[in-house]
Amino acid sequence: MAVNPIQNPIQFGIIGCADIARKVSRAIILAPNAALYAIGSRSIDKASQFAAANGFPPSAKIYGSYDDVLDDPDVDAVYVPLPTSLHIRWAVLAAEKKKHLLLEKPVALNVSEFDQILQACEANGVQFMDATMWMHNPRTANMKEFLSDSQRFGQLKTINSCFTFAADPDFLKNDIRVKPDLDALGALGDAGWYCVRSILWTADFELPKTVVALRGPVLNEVGVILSCGASLHWEDGKVATFHCSFLSNLTMDVTAIGTKGTLRLRDFIIPFEEDKASFTMGTESWFNELVTGWVPKPSEHTVTTDLPQEACMVREFSRLVEGIKGNGQSPEKKWPTFSRKTQLVLDAVKASIEKGFKPIEVVS
Amino acid sequence: MAVNPIQNPIQFGIIGCADIARKVSRAIILAPNAALYAIGSRSIDKASQFAAANGFPPSAKIYGSYDDVLDDPDVDAVYVPLPTSLHIRWAVLAAEKKKHLLLEKPVALNVSEFDQILQACEANGVQFMDATMWMHNPRTANMKEFLSDSQRFGQLKTINSCFTFAADPDFLKNDIRVKPDLDALGALGDAGWYCVRSILWTADFELPKTVVALRGPVLNEVGVILSCGASLHWEDGKVATFHCSFLSNLTMDVTAIGTKGTLRLRDFIIPFEEDKASFTMGTESWFNELVTGWVPKPSEHTVTTDLPQEACMVREFSRLVEGIKGNGQSPEKKWPTFSRKTQLVLDAVKASIEKGFKPIEVVS
Repeated sequence: MAVNPIQNPIQFGIIGCADIARKVSRAIILAPNAALYAIGSRSIDKASQFAAANGFPPSAKIYGSYDDVLDDPDVDAVYVPLPTSLHIRWAVLAAEKKKHLLLEKPVALNVSEFDQILQACEANGVQFMDATMWMHNPRTANMKEFLSDSQRFGQLKTINSCFTFAADPDFLKNDIRVKPDLDALGALGDAGWYCVRSILWTADFELPKTVVALRGPVLNEVGVILSCGASLHWEDGKVATFHCSFLSNLTMDVTAIGTKGTLRLRDFIIPFEEDKASFTMGTESWFNELVTGWVPKPSEHTVTTDLPQEACMVREFSRLVEGIKGNGQSPEKKWPTFSRKTQLVLDAVKASIEKGFKPIEVVS
Repeated sequence: MAVNPIQNPIQFGIIGCADIARKVSRAIILAPNAALYAIGSRSIDKASQFAAANGFPPSAKIYGSYDDVLDDPDVDAVYVPLPTSLHIRWAVLAAEKKKHLLLEKPVALNVSEFDQILQACEANGVQFMDATMWMHNPRTANMKEFLSDSQRFGQLKTINSCFTFAADPDFLKNDIRVKPDLDALGALGDAGWYCVRSILWTADFELPKTVVALRGPVLNEVGVILSCGASLHWEDGKVATFHCSFLSNLTMDVTAIGTKGTLRLRDFIIPFEEDKASFTMGTESWFNELVTGWVPKPSEHTVTTDLPQEACMVREFSRLVEGIKGNGQSPEKKWPTFSRKTQLVLDAVKASIEKGFKPIEVVS
């Protein structure tokens, strides 16, 4: 009897019980073509508690090691929320075990490590995707339509992106994101990842030619970045700036300005609300006769979402996996390419900071 | 019989018939303590047409030279909308003729010229104010209350400001703001002035220690800036960035982020509408439990304005002039100080561009 692939959801294993894995567990439950299948932790008790608290079905496999998840032949795909320094080991191993790979960001400590992950994925024919959820919000496609419209937006000229949040004292002392042996890229890898991604996304993933870190990054006593920024410069004159920080009130702004239009949003990573998301478009704005008001004013557009953006991500990833598994398709290359370009720019920002804010050429 | 000063409005002379003088003429009419009294142009016909078209009373003096306005003993104050390169000559002369001085921005080609203007004002006991209208919008004071609130905003960490507009081909060929002999600072002086002012205003006019121009400014064929940006750095780690341009769609954004709060507005120079103006405040924003939404969301605040902001400016300027003229008060120093600090930072941005994007120390 022929099996309808939709009736066989992609079976996910999760390795590690990070907080973010709670959200992704729910997303796997919500995605119509995915199923929670296994959880592995270094502690089987922790895995068991995580499964119970996060809606895993009674049949789910509970493992006391990451290896056990990767060795389970019924796991199709693995979600890896481990600290960045562990990505190369576990992501490569997952690929070698033929598991499709949904990897938390930042994808690696640097592009050289990331290339090893990608090589493993390619050699083993598995799909790679990083877990940058906002890319999958229906709003994102709507915004891209506007940015791509030569009449309404024109030629892209400048972008500003900002992601900051005010970490509490416990985070600043104990979180993996302030530890040089765990998430050595600190705020640049955690928050700056989103800023850089939003800039590259706006620029249709054309890499900048040059990256210059802004002076005055804040580092903790062991050298991990808590706050920094940079400017990105393209061959055609486009300029972008970003600021990322663990030390300021929660802010998630993107402003992209073209010759004819302006796009703005204030919640680009996590929309204010789950079931809808907004952005503002201005097109050929000008003034009234005495320059005492705008004609036309920018307008707000709201996009409703049938699924939370992280479930859209799981759905898209699972669709690609199904295509490979069930229909013999090749892995979709755009996702690893987006990840790699984001990592390349992060590397350049870090290099610029280390070299006293010198401009760094971005070489792909 | 004692004369009530309110019944004797401050009598304004205008020298030059620039477009912006139309808006300020209306503001002088609207301000309850000011009156349009004289207009001077190099062409008496042009002055006459300007007066007729802009609500000057029949009794208004129409002069065929700027000197005649300055020589009229009944002119209390002069509004100077001339090209920047002419400021030093006419602003100094106006002060020497004991006229209080409302001067268009940028106030001078550099701070050394501006200091000559200020010396003339001080020596002659006249009030100086630049015509940065948004400073006088009631919204501005409301926003400052928020920024000053240690509970709601906390300590200022970063600012981004942007002012761009898409100049048409005629502007880019013929406007005084693209001519090296008229407004040599180009987009930096015209649009960047507002960005720098908004940054300094946010930072309570504490000067940055260092200014670094962003790479990739656009200059026209005679070397006038059409687009540029910079980062500003303070001793305490605060960082600001700005972008100004004649080459992108109309955008006027300020985002200021503190440890506890975020202020945003999208129409800081010219509010979308004349009778009200809004801004967004976020305070101690965080996420819901699964990080799928914000709690609380930023909130929008609207301030109604009894008078257009430019009329508020004229009213405040006239109030100060009245205090000097009628009550023997001294000129208010804060306005020339704000102007001078803004000019100092513009000078530093220009120097950084000229020196290949080197950091420039700002020395007051």
